Amino acid sequence: MDALFGRKVFFKCENFQKVGAFKARGALNALLNLPANSGDVVTHSSGNHGAALAWAARKLGKTAYVICPTNASRFKRDAIERYGGTIVDCGPAIPQRETALQSFLQESDATFVPPYDHVDIIAGQGTATLELLEEVPNVTEIWVPIGGGGLASGTVVAANGRCAVVGSEPELARDAHDSLGSGRRLPALPPESIADGLLSSLGLLNFEILHRAHVPVRLVSEDEIRAATVLIWQTLKVVIEPSSAVPVAAALKDDVSSKEAIAIILSGGNVVPNLSV
Amino acid sequence: MDALFGRKVFFKCENFQKVGAFKARGALNALLNLPANSGDVVTHSSGNHGAALAWAARKLGKTAYVICPTNASRFKRDAIERYGGTIVDCGPAIPQRETALQSFLQESDATFVPPYDHVDIIAGQGTATLELLEEVPNVTEIWVPIGGGGLASGTVVAANGRCAVVGSEPELARDAHDSLGSGRRLPALPPESIADGLLSSLGLLNFEILHRAHVPVRLVSEDEIRAATVLIWQTLKVVIEPSSAVPVAAALKDDVSSKEAIAIILSGGNVVPNLSV
Repeated sequence: MDALFGRKVFFKCENFQKVGAFKARGALNALLNLPANSGDVVTHSSGNHGAALAWAARKLGKTAYVICPTNASRFKRDAIERYGGTIVDCGPAIPQRETALQSFLQESDATFVPPYDHVDIIAGQGTATLELLEEVPNVTEIWVPIGGGGLASGTVVAANGRCAVVGSEPELARDAHDSLGSGRRLPALPPESIADGLLSSLGLLNFEILHRAHVPVRLVSEDEIRAATVLIWQTLKVVIEPSSAVPVAAALKDDVSSKEAIAIILSGGNVVPNLSV
Repeated sequence: MDALFGRKVFFKCENFQKVGAFKARGALNALLNLPANSGDVVTHSSGNHGAALAWAARKLGKTAYVICPTNASRFKRDAIERYGGTIVDCGPAIPQRETALQSFLQESDATFVPPYDHVDIIAGQGTATLELLEEVPNVTEIWVPIGGGGLASGTVVAANGRCAVVGSEPELARDAHDSLGSGRRLPALPPESIADGLLSSLGLLNFEILHRAHVPVRLVSEDEIRAATVLIWQTLKVVIEPSSAVPVAAALKDDVSSKEAIAIILSGGNVVPNLSV
């Protein structure tokens, strides 16, 4: 891998994290920071955050309701239920999620735990970087994918200037790239990328953190995402989902000016590869 | 996984080994035990042993020639060449390999390093078990797949009575099962199983070691192998090849009479899952 990337590369394997993605960190941190008398929780999620909230809620004796688009991957919907969450169906468009959430909150006293635009979520996701920098303190850059921006902003906060943070997005879901480039938050494009964890609009707090830190965002094509996914399966022998391959693809085509070591956070592994050999 | 298996299960991940399979151990040990003045080496292999010999030979400044069936998986042929080995084509049937090897040896002074029926190969493969028992000394059984029997017999030798060894085979490649059951070595069936690392006939020395140790052999169907492969990908997030899923499938349907911990050796990860999400 070092030869392929032109420099030493470390991988933080969040696909091995509980629920198969870094999202377990933020969800658990958010629940641990709720007032002691708070009850059940609710969120909207097309996947990993929903499963993470279900997992964290069960650990703390709560129920998690997850407003989930009907077109979310079967694998991710199953995971929400396997961890004890209750799915509330909604339509695939982002405004439909919001409407479904508002209706739910009017009829329930559950607490809303947002997927990324929240200080406790961001702080939780940052713990991946605290562990990473404890193990390999000398990396000069940490590469992350950007969806809503929870992982990316948590990485910025946790790195705290010790190294640079480089964001990455699919060309088909480039709202963070365009928002940070123009200095104002633009809505997400209609969801199309194979990187199904990166279709959300950048959150407000996330935007502010990334903007202030001047985090660059590299874009990759769908073909580059597919190739990088298979490369990691084949070479590292670990299963990652396509969203996790976005920073891999971006770093692979980076013009390497420095030979210093970098790290890539492999954000999750919730995908079912086909067996056809 | 513990809940699925009905007891505590540890996995020895030889898919993370050099060349993506336990075969690196035996090949390196065999080459380190050659006389100091020996030159290049040759073997026949449909895959992992060939890549392992190429890798070990390059480390020691030798060239490895690998007699390889033309129908071997593209992935495994590529690996042999990537590690610096030279492929010599032969036909798919086992007698064709033997003939090709004999012709090669007549025209070359390379030393033949067999894939499994050799004391140094067996001892090398056994080092996986030495590491495993150092980390988890309390397992009562180690489950392994059986092809030529190098891994299984190495496991018996290395375990040295500290725990039981349970073998496993595809129903479509059950020669070890039938040989050990009848007490005489029977030839392999025509190769058909998806578990392409387990199509060889049990070696003579391997047979003797397994027979003396009364190693039982459990059989699994092709569907069970496929399901176990995907289960490991999905749950452990590690890439294994179908041959490695054979002991997983066998242990999954085992009548568990004891709650004691077991270990399964995941023998390799050289497969390319399809990305179709």
